[in-house]
Amino acid sequence: MASAQLLLVLHDMSNDAHLPNEPDPILAGFRKSIDNIDAALIHILAERFRITQAVGEYKAKATLPPADPDREQRQIDRLRALSEDANLDPEFSEKFLRFIIDEVIRHHEKAREDRRG
Amino acid sequence: MASAQLLLVLHDMSNDAHLPNEPDPILAGFRKSIDNIDAALIHILAERFRITQAVGEYKAKATLPPADPDREQRQIDRLRALSEDANLDPEFSEKFLRFIIDEVIRHHEKAREDRRG
Repeated sequence: MASAQLLLVLHDMSNDAHLPNEPDPILAGFRKSIDNIDAALIHILAERFRITQAVGEYKAKATLPPADPDREQRQIDRLRALSEDANLDPEFSEKFLRFIIDEVIRHHEKAREDRRG
Repeated sequence: MASAQLLLVLHDMSNDAHLPNEPDPILAGFRKSIDNIDAALIHILAERFRITQAVGEYKAKATLPPADPDREQRQIDRLRALSEDANLDPEFSEKFLRFIIDEVIRHHEKAREDRRG
């Protein structure tokens, strides 16, 4: 009976307790998923900026205005609706799109400066 | 000959010129790609926050510290390297990760407040 209790204690320790410097296997599993997701985000963002770069070049060639406030508002409304379906805070999705659009504008300004030399 | 020239002019107009309120088909194609990419980003971000929410709950249960500066630095270094391969500005990818981590911290703080009532 005493040895059975000892075994139970050892079993519990292997599942729930870790030495301070030992990696926690449950946390490590979560982090692996986060790392995979972050790699996907980086590659999708890279593709998005490739397209907005092409849009910038096309707008300059076709003498279309660089900004389009109506389009931006439609994008925001659409992403807020998508976010609600995905249980993501719509405020965050709007902040996120602004963050990305600010970077796109920065790229366009830099491209214009580069063209001017 | 006159009618052939007229046809050519009409053809050019349909490809390159648009009435001010008529949608530009090339721009519309780019925007469709951007909208698809943005929907993908929103859904991937929703999944990332689902995981970080589970991490927050697990850390609270396992009495692990909420922040881990070493982990954050490894994430930044890794995303900067991935960005270079994807032709994305590494400065932007670091700024992007900080933007996401700030939101995760905001979620964790809100969850802590909710638990306290």
